Amino acid sequence: MNRPDSIHIIADFSDCPLDRLETGAAGESALAEAVKESGLSCILIKSHQFDPTGYTAAALLAESHITLHTWPEYLAGQIDIFTCGSHARARKAYDVLKRLFAPGQVSERVLHRSLQQISLE
Amino acid sequence: MNRPDSIHIIADFSDCPLDRLETGAAGESALAEAVKESGLSCILIKSHQFDPTGYTAAALLAESHITLHTWPEYLAGQIDIFTCGSHARARKAYDVLKRLFAPGQVSERVLHRSLQQISLE
Repeated sequence: MNRPDSIHIIADFSDCPLDRLETGAAGESALAEAVKESGLSCILIKSHQFDPTGYTAAALLAESHITLHTWPEYLAGQIDIFTCGSHARARKAYDVLKRLFAPGQVSERVLHRSLQQISLE
Repeated sequence: MNRPDSIHIIADFSDCPLDRLETGAAGESALAEAVKESGLSCILIKSHQFDPTGYTAAALLAESHITLHTWPEYLAGQIDIFTCGSHARARKAYDVLKRLFAPGQVSERVLHRSLQQISLE
């Protein structure tokens, strides 16, 4: 059996347009689009709306997960894309989220997780 | 306003006892216990059972999320604990998961995410 060679893309987006950061519905829509365009396999998408604004949203995938946590007060969002499958699909999902959230600034790290070792790209 | 100083604990567990790795119910139970003992605020817990064995489970928190992905065929599990709140609570939740999964080997990384910067501990 081949052990998993999982990729975990971790990114904090700043200077985003506000509208994508406010409602759980916007987050679920972003996750659905990222999953669809990348060809990842979605099991379920859930979100939680914070009061008065901002949300947590998560997509559970056959290949692991994507999560979004937003901070409208800072025009910011925190993104995780973790997949045990195709690295190209994970990177495509990330590209879609970057396009949708349109951050002015991005902090990012990419980890490779092989069960025995977690290494930075 | 104070910007978030989020902690993200990333760990891959190996050489775990099989029983904790097999069913989504076991994963949901582990998440519930980690949340309860650490004092984190749980919004919802969801799991997906893979066929024939193994699961993905996620807890959405007021403070962000905890996720579990298991690989019974390798006696392994992949853990993420990401919180914008108390670092002590995140570390406590991690201790609980280590106790429950009882890994023989652990690979771990701890990231600090402040929106502007992602740094390794």
